[in-house]
Amino acid sequence: MSVLTRPILEINLKNVLENYLLLKNIAAHSIPAAVVKDDAYGLGAKVIAPLLYEKAGCRHFFVAHAVEGERIAQLVPQAKIFVLQGFGEDSKAHFDSCNQLIPVISSPEMLAYWKAARPDARKAVIHIETGLNRLGFREKDLAKLSEKDLTEFQMVMSHLACGDEKEHFMNAHQLEIFDALKNLYFPDLPASLSASDGVFLGEAFRWDMVRLGAAMYGINTAPYRQNQMKNVVKIKAPVLEIADLPKGEFVGYSATYRASSDRRVAIVSIGYGDGIPRSLSNVGKVYFNARSKLQEARVIGRMSMDNLICDVTNIDGLEVGDMALIADDFYTLDDMGRDAGTISYEIMSRVGKNSRYIRKYIEE
Amino acid sequence: MSVLTRPILEINLKNVLENYLLLKNIAAHSIPAAVVKDDAYGLGAKVIAPLLYEKAGCRHFFVAHAVEGERIAQLVPQAKIFVLQGFGEDSKAHFDSCNQLIPVISSPEMLAYWKAARPDARKAVIHIETGLNRLGFREKDLAKLSEKDLTEFQMVMSHLACGDEKEHFMNAHQLEIFDALKNLYFPDLPASLSASDGVFLGEAFRWDMVRLGAAMYGINTAPYRQNQMKNVVKIKAPVLEIADLPKGEFVGYSATYRASSDRRVAIVSIGYGDGIPRSLSNVGKVYFNARSKLQEARVIGRMSMDNLICDVTNIDGLEVGDMALIADDFYTLDDMGRDAGTISYEIMSRVGKNSRYIRKYIEE
Repeated sequence: MSVLTRPILEINLKNVLENYLLLKNIAAHSIPAAVVKDDAYGLGAKVIAPLLYEKAGCRHFFVAHAVEGERIAQLVPQAKIFVLQGFGEDSKAHFDSCNQLIPVISSPEMLAYWKAARPDARKAVIHIETGLNRLGFREKDLAKLSEKDLTEFQMVMSHLACGDEKEHFMNAHQLEIFDALKNLYFPDLPASLSASDGVFLGEAFRWDMVRLGAAMYGINTAPYRQNQMKNVVKIKAPVLEIADLPKGEFVGYSATYRASSDRRVAIVSIGYGDGIPRSLSNVGKVYFNARSKLQEARVIGRMSMDNLICDVTNIDGLEVGDMALIADDFYTLDDMGRDAGTISYEIMSRVGKNSRYIRKYIEE
Repeated sequence: MSVLTRPILEINLKNVLENYLLLKNIAAHSIPAAVVKDDAYGLGAKVIAPLLYEKAGCRHFFVAHAVEGERIAQLVPQAKIFVLQGFGEDSKAHFDSCNQLIPVISSPEMLAYWKAARPDARKAVIHIETGLNRLGFREKDLAKLSEKDLTEFQMVMSHLACGDEKEHFMNAHQLEIFDALKNLYFPDLPASLSASDGVFLGEAFRWDMVRLGAAMYGINTAPYRQNQMKNVVKIKAPVLEIADLPKGEFVGYSATYRASSDRRVAIVSIGYGDGIPRSLSNVGKVYFNARSKLQEARVIGRMSMDNLICDVTNIDGLEVGDMALIADDFYTLDDMGRDAGTISYEIMSRVGKNSRYIRKYIEE
């Protein structure tokens, strides 16, 4: 028996690299850019960007905000870093000081500001809207661009709404619009339409550059079939205490669980403060390797900031200090997202930003 | 019109201080400890702990993990820092190097390890279980403590399950058990039962020390009446783009929203990567001050990692660069939590851990 208190976050860099190389191989005719926005989905852009740069020759990165790009720029000195949220008064200074940053311009207003305030002659990327109805030039905005404006760009991009549903009508619809607008306005520019999910939709969706993010981090962006990616994130947390829960007793805040028979519970040292969704209260599952057997335990009661409680009545041989397996190869963040009513992306991004974990980067 | 790209997080330190002092005043006969676990609910323990130490004379802090305590110890040199998750093999080094850390011991196993491995003669806090069925010595464990064991502690504590519901039967029930166990086993020790919520339950719940956390950060821990606390967190994000959304068009990932009439939408530069709950997709609200009037806009479609889209059809005079008010005095994180199907605590803890915000600490 051990007495342990801290949760552990394991990030498998070897699998990030293998996933990247597999995706690169699938999209062999496209430049494989790496999406490291939001601190590489929380997993650590300062670790993952140089890994891809050094071990896989990646020279194109995408971030959301210029400040994110500047943080990694010196670690990937020969790379271009595309900034999806573009260029604004509150990010100009980063573009001034870091010439690796390339803004993605998504509106006429932003283009006007870029032309007025850009630090040098570097060419931007233009984001065109094809059906997601999020960021991007609408067709009527494109029609207003001058001849000179059309020469301001080095690439044209858009983004799929339903790329994770292979047969969704939106995919062909967006592809058709992208193809038409690109040929009409930017016939000579390289183009990028797809993130990870689009890579699996076939050659037609890959164009000149693919933007590899979620799948590289192990998320199944093609959920209509078994995940081809290797799992990247494992989360464990120690059992702080094991206790009897007599029939009729309540568990957790607001007494949302009541024992209908005598139970045995384990208090595990992880909670929503560690990025685990509180919506797993009374519905989540954690796992234990006890007596060399993988055993499942249900989360009972409300999850707290620092702890969760699970029913271990039927788990043999559990001891204080044993590790609850919160996410693993057999129960991924995709699975957790499903149970929590959200998606793995949101959980990954939250978990990774926590400094309470013992964080381990697995390289071998 | 401005072109802006980054969300802004404002943390009002003046209000944190006023909230602390109000709570301290309400619990005038108790030591007012400050709970700064989970990086002060994400708001920055390295800022908030020294603020309370210097401006309000706070000399008692609670953290969850020893590593959190060690990070602030030198900023509050004369303070005791109580560690709720206690003492383990993975936190021993922090207790060895920082003598301000006091473990909260919650199980016989942890007590045995503490006695075997503690760095010096400092006395611990004992956590006893009174109905939450989370961490703490159960009565049968207390009965097994030796005479010597009973002298190992400097304080006895427990924690309420339903302190935010004034009339909940659990409050009186837990108070009765706490009173009985404390008098039986630790008649001479100071005692602590209540966090912020318990402070409002009356003098009987306050004992010798109260643990002020959520309410200090502006959360309403007495939701059965109007919040007495001042709001601490404001979140804003700029409109990146305003566009027409023709009837029949879809919005966002998986095309979960379809326009049943011609609409106008704004794309706002904030998303779940910034800690805003993705469960606000298609149900959340954001606000704009347009034409000097506060106007509400509904979130439509799935929220993305970096952006949300809202319906601004009926909002007059909105321009690119205007700030969407995501959380404010009139729509607090408590309100957002209600709309998102969670609690403000979870949102605050997530938002605060994001380094993409322009973070402003308001001191005046």
